[in-house]
Amino acid sequence: MRILISNVVSLPREGSSRGRNPVDIGVGDGRILFIEDHMPLDSEKRQQQGPWDRIIAGRGRLVLPGFVNAHTHLGMTLLRGYGDDLPLMIWLQEKMWPVEEQLTPEDVYWSALLAIGEMLKGGVTTCADMYFHMEATAEAVAETGIRGFLSRGIQDAGGSGTRGLEEAVEFCRQWQGAANGRITTAIGPHAPYTCSPELLQRTADWAARLEVPIHIHVAETTAEIGEIKGKYGTTPLGMLAANGILDLPVTAAHCVHLEEADILLAAEKEVRIVHCPTSNLKLASGIAPVPEMLAAGLTIGLGTDSAASNNRLDLWQEMRTASLLHKGSSEDPTAVPAGTALQMATFLGAKALHLEQVGQLQPEWKADLILVDTHGLHWQPASDLTGRVVYAGERGDVSLVIVDGRILYEDGSLLTIDEEKVSYEVGKRAQRLGLLSST
Amino acid sequence: MRILISNVVSLPREGSSRGRNPVDIGVGDGRILFIEDHMPLDSEKRQQQGPWDRIIAGRGRLVLPGFVNAHTHLGMTLLRGYGDDLPLMIWLQEKMWPVEEQLTPEDVYWSALLAIGEMLKGGVTTCADMYFHMEATAEAVAETGIRGFLSRGIQDAGGSGTRGLEEAVEFCRQWQGAANGRITTAIGPHAPYTCSPELLQRTADWAARLEVPIHIHVAETTAEIGEIKGKYGTTPLGMLAANGILDLPVTAAHCVHLEEADILLAAEKEVRIVHCPTSNLKLASGIAPVPEMLAAGLTIGLGTDSAASNNRLDLWQEMRTASLLHKGSSEDPTAVPAGTALQMATFLGAKALHLEQVGQLQPEWKADLILVDTHGLHWQPASDLTGRVVYAGERGDVSLVIVDGRILYEDGSLLTIDEEKVSYEVGKRAQRLGLLSST
Repeated sequence: MRILISNVVSLPREGSSRGRNPVDIGVGDGRILFIEDHMPLDSEKRQQQGPWDRIIAGRGRLVLPGFVNAHTHLGMTLLRGYGDDLPLMIWLQEKMWPVEEQLTPEDVYWSALLAIGEMLKGGVTTCADMYFHMEATAEAVAETGIRGFLSRGIQDAGGSGTRGLEEAVEFCRQWQGAANGRITTAIGPHAPYTCSPELLQRTADWAARLEVPIHIHVAETTAEIGEIKGKYGTTPLGMLAANGILDLPVTAAHCVHLEEADILLAAEKEVRIVHCPTSNLKLASGIAPVPEMLAAGLTIGLGTDSAASNNRLDLWQEMRTASLLHKGSSEDPTAVPAGTALQMATFLGAKALHLEQVGQLQPEWKADLILVDTHGLHWQPASDLTGRVVYAGERGDVSLVIVDGRILYEDGSLLTIDEEKVSYEVGKRAQRLGLLSST
Repeated sequence: MRILISNVVSLPREGSSRGRNPVDIGVGDGRILFIEDHMPLDSEKRQQQGPWDRIIAGRGRLVLPGFVNAHTHLGMTLLRGYGDDLPLMIWLQEKMWPVEEQLTPEDVYWSALLAIGEMLKGGVTTCADMYFHMEATAEAVAETGIRGFLSRGIQDAGGSGTRGLEEAVEFCRQWQGAANGRITTAIGPHAPYTCSPELLQRTADWAARLEVPIHIHVAETTAEIGEIKGKYGTTPLGMLAANGILDLPVTAAHCVHLEEADILLAAEKEVRIVHCPTSNLKLASGIAPVPEMLAAGLTIGLGTDSAASNNRLDLWQEMRTASLLHKGSSEDPTAVPAGTALQMATFLGAKALHLEQVGQLQPEWKADLILVDTHGLHWQPASDLTGRVVYAGERGDVSLVIVDGRILYEDGSLLTIDEEKVSYEVGKRAQRLGLLSST
């Protein structure tokens, strides 16, 4: 499908004060063909570039790269709000784990559709998942048209590490590059405190052999830090380094409690970080040292974590919270400025997932982009659009979403997901699992 | 106008696990007439209660008390995003103050309309303002139908305290109880560091004589604490107590840096607090001791502060941020639970503004209420609605807003504000004031 987006506003390039505006964007074969100064549709050049299957009038709208939700668990969307406001261990032991034991592949499939529907409507075009029944999630990603970085989670604390690793390897073999390259895979050892050194070493061997990255939770809570230090005499990141994990491409979620030496180690090993500010606040994990990590040159993307600990899958919220939170906690109003937060939500998120040519509006890059309506009163007066996007915009402003060159959402309608059916199936399953309270 | 909202879902009462659902709500003469179990429209009882000017089918929607934005500056909405990400003193001295000097009453009027339009669309039914050209804001409040707690700001640092106080007194005399009681007034000495003890004492005398509350900024930054301690040997709140301010009903915005003794003093004097989490983060003022203030029994409402330091006038955001931030910063996931955050955004906000019978759905109370569409994917699975409202809901879910018994917003349309004209006027004025950047 060849699409021309005509006469749309774009943000100024990084390092440039002036936007080249308005622009026309050509899309074909899943890629951005060109971004050029706007000219009339009947101009000789645009005529020669055609024919177009679809011409979209961009006038008055802003084009952005699609958002990247760089750490989530789609299968847990069914557990949204189950156990709000509880202490972490009660939430895990009495709420999450007993329900997770009962989840079927079909539950995960419908939960993933719910998550993908919510994300697409909010302009998320790529998501990174780590969970079980990952084939069901992969089917949902393949069907709906979103881009996915998928890993079967493994651990040996309380589970069979070997069987999990075998399944994870099999998953990578089967799904790497599937769905026209929209699906990439990783191996997902859960965390330093749930994986033994032996399992981590075997995981590293397999990841190297398969040439896939590692997706892992790191240094999420102070409890984890205490446990790992007590057991191994080093930090969680140090423990991963000792077992060969950091010699591979790594996507490390959370990193709330990195010490100074950890930050240097992460920079040296080019560990890619995923900051999950809302989840870290809601679970009271703490506040990650984002300004320090940025200063060390680390690549930081943004993630929602699951809907059970957020309870939104909304990158607008993560972007805004990342920008606001670190100003307040570091008492520096220049910390994480709007432009940085927007990069974290797009290009840096894609980079954190080791994706090539995703997350920027560049010729030849993947055509993952969104159109945003800036007419709302909350955007007025209309100036400094980068600041408006981060501090004032919201997901209801997204009016069109394209992933891999295909329109997936337009003017309130998801084109690949039956919302009513998803709500019905999810409600039915939540009922069966005992997730519904009286109201 | 008599309105019947039929067959709508309500939240369980405080202290009760069961909602009485669905319900019918009758509205007349600006008040809630009844909330009763739902029964058919042609039932004898509903027939007797009529006739109704308007019957609204509530089915599938949630009814909430309208939100209370308990501290903002409507006249600054024109400055939205002007000077994002700058250090506080540069932001104030080079951005805010030079523009504020040029603001005309007409600028403030259109800015207030912009603010009120944004707020109504997001379900805010009451706002508290402190600014200058307050007559212009009062006209906007009167015209649009929102409820307003309005004060002309005064200070003697760099301004004429006496003239300001005279105008503030005159404003109270003219507007107290105006617009069918929708407008209440206060006197607004700006802050301990901008008002001399003499001005505060004169203000206290006048507020007592007029029987209006005081609306003031307190302990917003560490710089303020240092300055007041250096000058008066006490904290900002202690300085207000020493000058008679705390013997009156007070609405104290921010209170970011209250010491333990301040919290006890505030509790003893029944000072009403307005927490502004987003603004405190964005300006890097710090994180207010909300769990400690709640534990001391203080009444805490929520405010956006101005659009220049937020940049939204969105109580959904403040409610969510208040609930999340204090969990993270206190490392306690049970801090500020959803029910408390929702109370802060509604009833406690009204109480912080010394308003009677506002902020709860009770017979005889003011009919300030909103209907919320809970069909969106981000509300699924549909359970524990209080948690959904705080953590998952958003202002785009608001489908109808009633203030003082009158419908002001319905299905995307503001009924008392011409959005296009407001955007045009605001854009023109922002241009004149040099607020627009190249994009």
